[in-house]
Formats: sequence, structure tokens, C-alpha cells
Amino acid sequence: MEPSQRSQVPGFEVMSVLARIDAMRAAGRDVVSLTAGEPGSGAPPAVHRAAEAVHAEQTVLNYSAALGVRPLREAIAAHCAAWYGAAVDPGRVAVTTGSSGAFLLSFLAAFDVGDRVALARPGYPAYRNILTSLGVEVVDLDCGPAERFQPTVAQLEAAHAEAPLAGLILASPANPTGTMIPREELLALAGWCREHAVQLVSDEIYHGISFGEQAVSALEVTDEAVVVSSFSKYWGMPGWRLGWAVLPEHLIDPVSRLAGNVTLCPPHGSQLAAVEAFGAESMAFAAAQVDHYAAARQQVLDRLDELGWGEVAPADGAFYVYAHLGEQLEVFGDSPTYCRELLEQAGVAVVPGTDFDPVGGHEWVRLSLAPGPQTVAQGLDRIAAFRQG
Amino acid sequence: MEPSQRSQVPGFEVMSVLARIDAMRAAGRDVVSLTAGEPGSGAPPAVHRAAEAVHAEQTVLNYSAALGVRPLREAIAAHCAAWYGAAVDPGRVAVTTGSSGAFLLSFLAAFDVGDRVALARPGYPAYRNILTSLGVEVVDLDCGPAERFQPTVAQLEAAHAEAPLAGLILASPANPTGTMIPREELLALAGWCREHAVQLVSDEIYHGISFGEQAVSALEVTDEAVVVSSFSKYWGMPGWRLGWAVLPEHLIDPVSRLAGNVTLCPPHGSQLAAVEAFGAESMAFAAAQVDHYAAARQQVLDRLDELGWGEVAPADGAFYVYAHLGEQLEVFGDSPTYCRELLEQAGVAVVPGTDFDPVGGHEWVRLSLAPGPQTVAQGLDRIAAFRQG
Repeated sequence: MEPSQRSQVPGFEVMSVLARIDAMRAAGRDVVSLTAGEPGSGAPPAVHRAAEAVHAEQTVLNYSAALGVRPLREAIAAHCAAWYGAAVDPGRVAVTTGSSGAFLLSFLAAFDVGDRVALARPGYPAYRNILTSLGVEVVDLDCGPAERFQPTVAQLEAAHAEAPLAGLILASPANPTGTMIPREELLALAGWCREHAVQLVSDEIYHGISFGEQAVSALEVTDEAVVVSSFSKYWGMPGWRLGWAVLPEHLIDPVSRLAGNVTLCPPHGSQLAAVEAFGAESMAFAAAQVDHYAAARQQVLDRLDELGWGEVAPADGAFYVYAHLGEQLEVFGDSPTYCRELLEQAGVAVVPGTDFDPVGGHEWVRLSLAPGPQTVAQGLDRIAAFRQG
Repeated sequence: MEPSQRSQVPGFEVMSVLARIDAMRAAGRDVVSLTAGEPGSGAPPAVHRAAEAVHAEQTVLNYSAALGVRPLREAIAAHCAAWYGAAVDPGRVAVTTGSSGAFLLSFLAAFDVGDRVALARPGYPAYRNILTSLGVEVVDLDCGPAERFQPTVAQLEAAHAEAPLAGLILASPANPTGTMIPREELLALAGWCREHAVQLVSDEIYHGISFGEQAVSALEVTDEAVVVSSFSKYWGMPGWRLGWAVLPEHLIDPVSRLAGNVTLCPPHGSQLAAVEAFGAESMAFAAAQVDHYAAARQQVLDRLDELGWGEVAPADGAFYVYAHLGEQLEVFGDSPTYCRELLEQAGVAVVPGTDFDPVGGHEWVRLSLAPGPQTVAQGLDRIAAFRQG
């Protein structure tokens, strides 16, 4: 028997990097890993305390409602009001099993087999791979330094003229580049989508983590987008598998029905505890982590010349630096080779850009700031010492 | 903008029943609900204690490996050896976000758009709705009392002759009927699948809950099936969102790649705690719940005449009784009407068979034994008093 055609999504280069890190550490090597988008802090203590109480009381954790428990939906709606001034009815909030669950359900609810959906390249590879596995055609928008790595209306016009688009995925701040979409640009993109009946999906999972202005939410400019966020990044809770989508009216019932069949409900214990994420103590905890990422980011920007790397994407937010390999590219030929040699010789791991951009990513690497300034400093020392040519 | 065609899966009748129960209770009515497949017991105390420790120590819960943490994969493999005498390499075990996650990933890994997959009618409606949303054609096998509500090789032959099948979904014990597939029949079905290169998916989430013989696992008769199970039923942990699939070799890499894109990982805290589900204390706790379901089941079978219902499916296992409405059908016309009137007049809720069988389900109802013997006894008293005609 054979696996399906659609299961043949590409493996991530980062997976072999992670496996190699494990093997090296098992063999006693000291490795500095600047690979993962996982905050080193963990969850806010108040959230842990709430979860501890759930289990101390042996709370019966049955299925919750498919779109989540009401108090959490209300807390998320209140958070949208506090951060964005957006009036969101809690009935529009779908609590999901991570942002992954939000993407899966909203892609199923909005797009049929054969539909064309546009997204930026470079970008988070799972968008592409989920869409492809669901039979949706991915339309790449080639977004380089000239576009600050974000889609433009002109690119959408061109793609739509070739064959009509059904959807557009935006991410601000973006992974791997960290670039954000300014308000007037977001307004233009959302307006274009409305005019052309193109479903906008806005990935906002890195909101809260930015180093100058705050990121603008699609909730501030339109009621028609699917706006996805998560407890994984700002609140440091990736393993809790909890995210959300604020849905436009026409997708509430479809997402609800799909959720009741495809996922049943998000983790119930995580939901009960996550209400505490919006308390003053937890919000202060999360904000303090951003200071750590900012310090780590500044170190990288200050030491770029030492590393032998070239230009970097303007990391307005998120916790990554996406850097061109510059002179090191000439020495090593491509980023997978550079990353392999860096790991083997210097014991520091970063991710080759090929995971995010199959076309141009061989010239770029992504360094994660999420491990915090101490670990990043240690990594930078090693990268600088490793510099060749 | 419009939702996708594929999001137009049917809503469940049970959802309106549950909403009505909530409204009645909010208005002060006392309602006995025999609707949900949720054990009233909750999780084994040792699992709660393990989860409590995870949070008391403020364990950083990052993403786990996409297929789950190694100790849990090993514990599940050991459990398969203990229960079924099956030698399962832990590398074949995919820990998933409930059995829902196992169905989603294995359906994606095994079936392409346009493939034909056979399943029993009546059956768990989410199989049909997940498959349909993924673009797979569902082939109904009409399984009535004559087939003990389970597919036969003759039915497969007939369906395959019309147009080749790509897959077969089995469930033993089944929802809503509770019937199990005997060993020799499972051997024949698995053998037929192997001969015809049809991917067998065996839903075994109710294993452990049976009232005579133990259910036979597909692991005992083939290495080529996807065998799905869950912590939701036997261990009473539906809200923890944790299940697993034992995969055939050819689907390990595809499921792993898909999981890394579509779900990232199952809930990490639930995984750490669930290792305790296989300890002696937890296994004894779970076994004790089966005694409660058995007592509740016996009550229903003893009082069928009083209820005015007709024949029941032989509930070998799981915690449901699927009953023909018998003489009450003549009074009420169909099961949705009967269930509505029963709820409004007598304050007891069961689920109409139409959720499980769009063709013949209007003559049947499903009663859940999961709330335990006391609640079931109370419900039966009311149903008997409600009997009309």
C-alpha cells in the first residue's frame, strides 16, 4: 500500500538539524541552539497555578464546547478591545488547538479543493503545506527586501489577473523575517480583498512581541478577516496547544460545525488555566520577556559585521533575525551547508532559509532570539569565531 | 464572501438537544441527560496528581516531538503488548490530539481527493464528515441487525466492484451500537483489505469497555492497519485531548511530516501526565468504571419492555444502547420527534439515531450509559412513565 500523494509535503530542514543537535548532545557535545520558536520562559506562573488547581481538585475535564469555554472566549474578546480598540462579540471567537487548529479549521471553512490562495515567500512553511494537503493551490508572492518581505496590492493584482484568488494569508510580524505591515498598507490589502471577495487570513501570533511600534491587527481595519492568534509566543505556552481565531460572521457556523467533527474541542484544562493569561500579573510577565528578546535582537544587530553575514530583514517584531549570509555564502555555497558546518564545527545551530523559501532561502539563515540574551550571546561568540574566508 | 462547499457538513441533532438541555436547566428544569459519550468519573487520580506536579514545578511546556514524547510512545507500545500480545515498536506509535487527531492525520496520509472509503451505516458521524471535508468519497455500507451493524466481506466485494475502494473504516466496539467484530471476521476483513490494497483504519477507542469477551484489536491480525485509540473513554479523559494511532510502516513518515505541519504536537502536559494512565492504580480505576457501565447496561436491558422500545443492538461494548423505538415509533412517527417530546415532557435526553444513520436512524435512539447507573436509573424511570399509546 502507498501513502497518499498529498502526504508528500517536504520535510523541514530544521527537523534534521534538531535530530543532529540531540545526537551531538547525547554524545556529550555542548550545543547552543538558536533554532526554535519556543520562549525559554515557559508560561506565566499565574497560569501554572490555575492549572495546578484544576488538577488538585481533580476537575472532570470533559469535552468543552467545540469553540471553547465561554469565559475564555469572553476574555479573548476583552483582550482584543484592550489591545486594538476592536469591539469583538465573544461569539466570533473560536478557541482552537493552537494556531494550527485555527489555520486548519479556517482553511477548511473558507477554501475548496482547487481554490487559489496567495501568500508571501519567504514565510511559515506550514501555511503552504496545510493548504496543499487540503487540495488548495498555493500562489507564491515573491517578497524580498524591496517589499520588506510582505505582499503588495500590485502583486495581488498580478496574481488575481492570472486566475482569480480565493484567499490571502498575511503574517505580521512575520516568520522568519519579523517584518510588520504598516496600518495604511494593511488597510489597502484588506480593502483589495473585500473588493475582490478574497478571504483574508491574518496570522497575528507574534503580536505583543515588537521592538518599536505595536503591530496593527486586521481587527482594526476590517470585520471580514479571519484573525489568528495564540498563547504559544507572547505568553510562552507552545506545548499547551491553545490559540484562537476571531471569525467573520459568515464563517462562524462553518467553523463551528467543522470543529465539532474534526477536532471536537481544544484542550479543556489549558482553556481553564489560560483565562489567567490576561490577568495583570501574567501580562507583566509576558511583557518582561519582550525586553529579553529586544536585548538579544540588539546584540545580533550590533555584531553583524563580526559574524560575516550580510543584510538582515528589518525585524520589527517576533523573535527571529533573518539574515543573508553575505560573504559567508561565497565560502560555503549555500545556507544548508553553512548551517551544517556551523553546527558540527562550532556547536551552534541556526536554521537554513530553505525551510521558509524554496527559491531564495539557500542564501539566508534564521536565528531565533527566543532562548534569550545569554544564550544568544554565547551563540554569537561562536558564530564570530567560526567565521571563515 | 461565502464559506467553502466542503464546510457544509450536517449539524448534529445532538447539538440542538444539548442546547435545549442548557436552556431548560438555566430555566430551573431538572434534566437527566443520557446523551454524551463522556464518562462521569473523570481521569484516574494518579493522572491528575502527575499533571498537578507538572504545574506545581512550573515545567516549561514547549512543543514536544510531533509524534509525542518518547516515554508515552513506549508506554502505549507496552500497553499493546500487555492487552493484545502485539509486538509494537514505539516508533510506530503516533500520540495524537485525541482520536480526532489520529483520524485527521491518517486520513490525510492514506487518502487523496476523490478516493473512495467505505464505512458502516450507522456509525460515528465524524468519520463521514472529516472524510468529506478532505475531498474523500464516503461509501456507505448498510449494516443492520442482520449484520450485527458491522461490515461484511460480501459488502466490500460489492462496493469494490462498483469502483475500487481505497480504504475501510472499522469500529469495534462501535458507536452508536456497541457491537464488536469477532476475531475470525476481523481476520477475514483485514485479509480482504490486504489482498485488495485497501487501507484498513480500525477505531478501537472503546477498547477496555466490554461486557463479555474483550474486543479483538486489529493489531492481533495485521501489521498493515492504522489502529486508533484514545484516553478519552476507558480512562475518562476526553477534555485532555489525547489519543494515539499505531501506524503501519508505510505511513510513519507521511503522518510524521503531516503532524509537523498540521498539528505540531499533541498537548504536552497531557502527555507527561498520561504516562501514569498505565500504572496499576489507574488501570484499576478504569476497570472499576466498566463495572458501573455494565450495571447501567443491565438496567436498560431488564426494563426494555417498560420503555415501550423495540429491539436493541447487541451492546457488546462501549457505553451506549442503540434501540429501535418499537411501538413508540408508531406513536411519535420518528426519533427526532420522540426525543424532543421526551425531553420537553419528561426531562430526559437521549440522541435520535439520525445523527448516526441518515437513512434508517429516524427509527432508532442512542442512550448513553456513561453517566453511570444512578443517573441511568433515574432516566429509565422517567422514560417508562412517559411511555405513550
